[in-house]
Amino acid sequence: MRPFAPITGDPIDRSRFPVDEWALIETRFSADDLGVTESLFSIGNGYLGLRGNYSESRDAHVDGTFINGFHETWPILHAEEAFGLARVGQSIVNVPDAKVIRLYVDDEPLELSSADLLEYERRLDFRTGVLTRELVWRTPSGKRVKISTRRMVSFTQKHVASIEFAVTLLDGRAPVQISSQLLNRQDRDLEHPAIETPSGTIADPRKAERLGRRVLLPEVSEIGETTGRMRLGYRCAESGMTLGVSADHTLEAPAEVSTQLHCEDDLTKIIYRTHLEAGQTLRLTKLVSYHTAHRVPARELLDRCERTLDRVGEDGLARLQADQREWLAAFWKRADVRIHRQPELQQAVRWNLLQVMQAAARAENQGIAAKGVTGSGYGGHYFWDTEIYVLPFLTYTSPYAARNALRFRYQLLPHARRRAREVSQKGALFPWRTINGHEASAYYAAGTAQYHIDADIAYAISQYVDATGDTDFLWREGVDILVETARLWADLGFWRRDNGTSSFHIHSVTGPDEYTTVVNDNMFTNTLARFNLRRAAEAVHEIRSEDPDAYDDLVRRTGLTDDEVEEWADAARGMSIPFDKKVGIHPQDSRFLDREMWDLENTPVSSRPLLLHHHPLVIYRFQVLKQADVVLALFLQSEEFSLEEKLADFRYYDPITTGDSTLSAMVQSIMAAEVGYHELALQYFLQALYVDLTDLHANTADGVHVASVGGVWCALVNGFGGFRAKGQQCWAFDPRLPDDWEGLDFRLNLHGTRLGVELTRDQIRFEIEDGPGPLTLVVRDEEVVVAPGEPVTVALPDQGPRIDGRPPNPAGTVRADGTAISSTVPHAD
Amino acid sequence: MRPFAPITGDPIDRSRFPVDEWALIETRFSADDLGVTESLFSIGNGYLGLRGNYSESRDAHVDGTFINGFHETWPILHAEEAFGLARVGQSIVNVPDAKVIRLYVDDEPLELSSADLLEYERRLDFRTGVLTRELVWRTPSGKRVKISTRRMVSFTQKHVASIEFAVTLLDGRAPVQISSQLLNRQDRDLEHPAIETPSGTIADPRKAERLGRRVLLPEVSEIGETTGRMRLGYRCAESGMTLGVSADHTLEAPAEVSTQLHCEDDLTKIIYRTHLEAGQTLRLTKLVSYHTAHRVPARELLDRCERTLDRVGEDGLARLQADQREWLAAFWKRADVRIHRQPELQQAVRWNLLQVMQAAARAENQGIAAKGVTGSGYGGHYFWDTEIYVLPFLTYTSPYAARNALRFRYQLLPHARRRAREVSQKGALFPWRTINGHEASAYYAAGTAQYHIDADIAYAISQYVDATGDTDFLWREGVDILVETARLWADLGFWRRDNGTSSFHIHSVTGPDEYTTVVNDNMFTNTLARFNLRRAAEAVHEIRSEDPDAYDDLVRRTGLTDDEVEEWADAARGMSIPFDKKVGIHPQDSRFLDREMWDLENTPVSSRPLLLHHHPLVIYRFQVLKQADVVLALFLQSEEFSLEEKLADFRYYDPITTGDSTLSAMVQSIMAAEVGYHELALQYFLQALYVDLTDLHANTADGVHVASVGGVWCALVNGFGGFRAKGQQCWAFDPRLPDDWEGLDFRLNLHGTRLGVELTRDQIRFEIEDGPGPLTLVVRDEEVVVAPGEPVTVALPDQGPRIDGRPPNPAGTVRADGTAISSTVPHAD
Repeated sequence: MRPFAPITGDPIDRSRFPVDEWALIETRFSADDLGVTESLFSIGNGYLGLRGNYSESRDAHVDGTFINGFHETWPILHAEEAFGLARVGQSIVNVPDAKVIRLYVDDEPLELSSADLLEYERRLDFRTGVLTRELVWRTPSGKRVKISTRRMVSFTQKHVASIEFAVTLLDGRAPVQISSQLLNRQDRDLEHPAIETPSGTIADPRKAERLGRRVLLPEVSEIGETTGRMRLGYRCAESGMTLGVSADHTLEAPAEVSTQLHCEDDLTKIIYRTHLEAGQTLRLTKLVSYHTAHRVPARELLDRCERTLDRVGEDGLARLQADQREWLAAFWKRADVRIHRQPELQQAVRWNLLQVMQAAARAENQGIAAKGVTGSGYGGHYFWDTEIYVLPFLTYTSPYAARNALRFRYQLLPHARRRAREVSQKGALFPWRTINGHEASAYYAAGTAQYHIDADIAYAISQYVDATGDTDFLWREGVDILVETARLWADLGFWRRDNGTSSFHIHSVTGPDEYTTVVNDNMFTNTLARFNLRRAAEAVHEIRSEDPDAYDDLVRRTGLTDDEVEEWADAARGMSIPFDKKVGIHPQDSRFLDREMWDLENTPVSSRPLLLHHHPLVIYRFQVLKQADVVLALFLQSEEFSLEEKLADFRYYDPITTGDSTLSAMVQSIMAAEVGYHELALQYFLQALYVDLTDLHANTADGVHVASVGGVWCALVNGFGGFRAKGQQCWAFDPRLPDDWEGLDFRLNLHGTRLGVELTRDQIRFEIEDGPGPLTLVVRDEEVVVAPGEPVTVALPDQGPRIDGRPPNPAGTVRADGTAISSTVPHAD
Repeated sequence: MRPFAPITGDPIDRSRFPVDEWALIETRFSADDLGVTESLFSIGNGYLGLRGNYSESRDAHVDGTFINGFHETWPILHAEEAFGLARVGQSIVNVPDAKVIRLYVDDEPLELSSADLLEYERRLDFRTGVLTRELVWRTPSGKRVKISTRRMVSFTQKHVASIEFAVTLLDGRAPVQISSQLLNRQDRDLEHPAIETPSGTIADPRKAERLGRRVLLPEVSEIGETTGRMRLGYRCAESGMTLGVSADHTLEAPAEVSTQLHCEDDLTKIIYRTHLEAGQTLRLTKLVSYHTAHRVPARELLDRCERTLDRVGEDGLARLQADQREWLAAFWKRADVRIHRQPELQQAVRWNLLQVMQAAARAENQGIAAKGVTGSGYGGHYFWDTEIYVLPFLTYTSPYAARNALRFRYQLLPHARRRAREVSQKGALFPWRTINGHEASAYYAAGTAQYHIDADIAYAISQYVDATGDTDFLWREGVDILVETARLWADLGFWRRDNGTSSFHIHSVTGPDEYTTVVNDNMFTNTLARFNLRRAAEAVHEIRSEDPDAYDDLVRRTGLTDDEVEEWADAARGMSIPFDKKVGIHPQDSRFLDREMWDLENTPVSSRPLLLHHHPLVIYRFQVLKQADVVLALFLQSEEFSLEEKLADFRYYDPITTGDSTLSAMVQSIMAAEVGYHELALQYFLQALYVDLTDLHANTADGVHVASVGGVWCALVNGFGGFRAKGQQCWAFDPRLPDDWEGLDFRLNLHGTRLGVELTRDQIRFEIEDGPGPLTLVVRDEEVVVAPGEPVTVALPDQGPRIDGRPPNPAGTVRADGTAISSTVPHAD
């Protein structure tokens, strides 16, 4: 689109990455994009993540192993101080690496970048959850060696990863040596929370927080003399986080093997030496366990590792792998989305969906990080992305994971209450970015000022409860968040009387779009805050009427009064939602339309992305968007706006939205679909789908864009599927199948019932795949009831309204009142 | 006023600081406020400054010696990076200390805090420019010793300071030892550019830039074996600034003296040992010279020091002191302001006026720093304060110094042009704070965003040229600044059509008031930018018509075109100056009145100053001011606004102005006087007058508030004297003598003629004190011509309009349209 070349045809190099609906496959080694492929071939379970590094650990962009929430802290030093600025820097730590297995044949090391590789295949299998690599290597002495590795992070055993490493000599006879390690690389740099840009973080040598000190202090480094069991234990110097990692090895060898153990600080290794004949295979299995905690001694964590290893070892690797397949089979059964007869797209879709689970499946008491456990980008922080981009997929397909993510927010509530006090407010203000609950956004204008995170969390709670009917969570925990966030809005906003009408205003906040900051009455914020206030009042009324005891508990926990609940309802009713009658759109904030317009269409590519070429003040001066803002509100609060309003807003904002944020494309896809820009909707979908697979924003090396991969599901289901949840138990469909798609099917878990939805060009079909049903649905204006064993088909005369092309560039155009829209292309330095 | 207790009566402790119209005198040692008295008794000449430390150098807050512009640089590390943020940190360096002279009697050191002092007096004489100290010390062994010190920084010899140290034994006989030193203390911390607050910089251990390295690298450390001449040479590690300091000693002794020389890195000392009998005096004279430069080898600077010492030594100390007296006599003759029969106020006024000269007299190729050369506060940076608060006094009394300050800006023009490119603009953007020309403001919202500095500089140029008639400066240099700043405004702003009218808007800038930042159409900025655009166009027209050659040069230098000059005039004509008809005032920015009001009157003292108790976002959300903003524009562009407008604006803003900035009181005093709030005008004047003398903002220890001391003159002359320059050669007076003042006189240098102005309760009298005259003046509506030898008296029936009390708190009041002004007191953490 505007920022990037439009995607036409298949953007993936199929000579290297062949099509497979159930796997991402690479058939050629390349040292040029190691960082990208490491991210694409990462495996993880939401707790533990191993980047797709080669076991040999020599050709790597970042040799990364990450554990969700395992972080170091450091004081944020502001170039200029002010009251209430974020103080506690937090960065995910690259933990000791268990992936390392080095191979020597004829004493020659295998190094991929220099090796003569006769065969090469790397494969991430979406059904087995195993990353395999098959090589045939011609050694410098001319012998052919086959190396097969399999690597897995278990979805069923949260703390376990397994690695298999098999070497088969194909010719002659050779001494073979394998060195398997636990290695801590002692990084002294932590990823600095830098600015998201399409081409990576701002090019600056200071982007990494140079701590100039050890982060992981060694506490234990041992290797069992008889067992060979390895144990490393660490403590983070400042955060108090502790870690234990332990590994067991099993060797199958056709000949005698000498074993050597080695142990020092930051490194344990076991070295196997043997001689292989042609056709013989040496097979090593490495079972690894990580345990982490806060302030628990590393030795105790190592005991937990050992118990895990004992238990899993007893059951055996085959069982672990079978469990994994079974787990994934269940996942695909409840969560798969199929694009009929488009294997290229199908592959990309499934890779994206799997990423969400790799980021979230076992996140449990942690949040879901912006890069999952695939990299240290964004410091391993949790943002609003989780609630708005990731939770929809989890809520409708794996509700337990959505509940875990929301319970994590509940656990942060005490921090959020304190933070509200620091910014002079009642209620709770969730940190814009955090790992441990402390606000970590060093640039408040595009961080702390994004108060909308409160409403985003409230929205996700509501969505979850409406989809699942889990009132247990709502009444015992979720409602506390609704109450405290509503309190914040009621306290933050104020009433003002203009032209005889009183309305409720929220000032000096930043919406999702970070190309304008600290504005008054940001339309997104006010719209979502209105929802938050309403929903909190409703929840309180509901609890009071349905469970007086729960209500009494709530009052005890929160000090709730009747007056404030009424105040919320009032504030919601009076909420100012900016609308400009002359232009006929919702301005992004109360004075958005006062600004000059940035003529994006005529801005040279060399000035993009804007934030790498212009001082923030310059960007803030213009009507230009980093990402959809009003348009996102139109989607999330769909029933509050008419199709005409949506069309007008979309037409206005789309041409001035740079998409410099990866969060933008999916929203634009959904709303383009709704208002009728079919081609554009598909194009934005592709921009989201291929963010990582084609490294569209040039920073996939830092990790997978988890929000974007979550957004792919939304674009499919909400965009093309036209699915909207409207209030409690009203699920509506208004499909927009792309022109050259034959069909699309997906499934939704609604109140414990799995609904299969199949959309084709002329109909939409619903079927209860599992669970009690029945479900009442709305297709366009028609209500249908779907009961188990009674699929329903609704004919579709069309795929909704249709507008060709894309909205015109409004820069310089003349308005209805005869005035031209003042526009310019600011100079770039 | 609101932030502070009103000043009633004499706020100075006269038992310690007795009244003297021509000196600041202290009669009692106190260790409680060392930092404050060090600043108050600082001496300097605008190039070199010595804080009022005791020679013994043991009881000190900061042992400070500062040279204007002598700074170290360091990379500014932003907690979060963005394009175009300031990169080059700059901090004035505390240079090697020549003040140190230690005294031992009976081997007992003199330490003031523990000494038994029978007599103590410290005196800064405003006519001799000498700081003296007279002590009688009873040593631990019971002998009385008289110590007289005299310290001076020469106004006539820029690089020279002298110190006299005389010891008289009053009883018995005793061994006496004097150790005179040049000492470099190797500070590893530099003052961090922190936030101005009434109670100092934000309490934070990180406020000093911990460089963790030496700043001054020793290059020379020598002492002449026969001459005893000391030489220290240094180079700043990063900035490349170099320094030489050299000292000569002369001793008068009644008995034999043994002399010992000592020299090491960072320390040279000369130790004199002798025995004194009762009544005998040992008298040491130390002549010191500092030379500094950029990249000149320290040895070469030391040669310059020696030449200076040779020359000044030859002429003798008496000559140096006589020159100083003569220089000061001339200064007072042209610059004194007298408040008749109010010796307490007179003393304070003269102390303030002297401070301006101590900051500016020999600043020459440097700017005038916010703390002059009295401390390292604000990192020794130059701000807009110079142009708006300090230059009026200099322009009208010491125009050469104003010209130097403006020529310094001219020298920064290449930097300012580059900076404009960095923020995507044409023309030039002067750095908000700097020493070396690079922008050093680490917090852009209250720094770089204050583009008004461009107009402030243009204003000061215009004021200087109008007052002096110095078209030579204007045509050859000043006009370049006018052209480049006008270009910036024309490029920064844009035309917008609202309700059928096109107007010119300036967005995303911050005005002088830092309690709202990054706003659209800040009234101050737009008003001054309009002036800037007009004045640039006028100057260009003037040069073109009067000196075609100079015009051709200008075109060659700046690439000026006719079109752009017309564009400036258009932009000035179309400039949007926000005015709200309903409220009848100028909003501070286009949406200022949309904000809720901070009920300042009901805000507890414990929450003041606001910026120490509230996150910036909280403060930005409200109608509340750190300092006068609209009200300052009303003063600077007096002829553009009616008295009614001024009154309405003043009444509106005064109650919501915290005065948390020391820049505020003088402006409020002037405008209170003009609109008729006589009591309030006097009160604000006192708040300005006593900023340092009573440490009103609790941070005088960091140095003298040079802008505030300059503002004292403005409050007297523009406020009570009612003086306004209206365009070129129109000087008007509309006096407002405070109720209990008998009279006030001051003098103005207008086109080389010195006009004496004497204001009493019933008349104003003008007299040409020096120069050719005649001058045409306007008193209220009457035009008078004053010629040499022909004084003119104009009777005054009154002192202008009169309103008692002060404007009411508008918080919660009801407007004409029946709406209440929404107000609140935000919670403080």
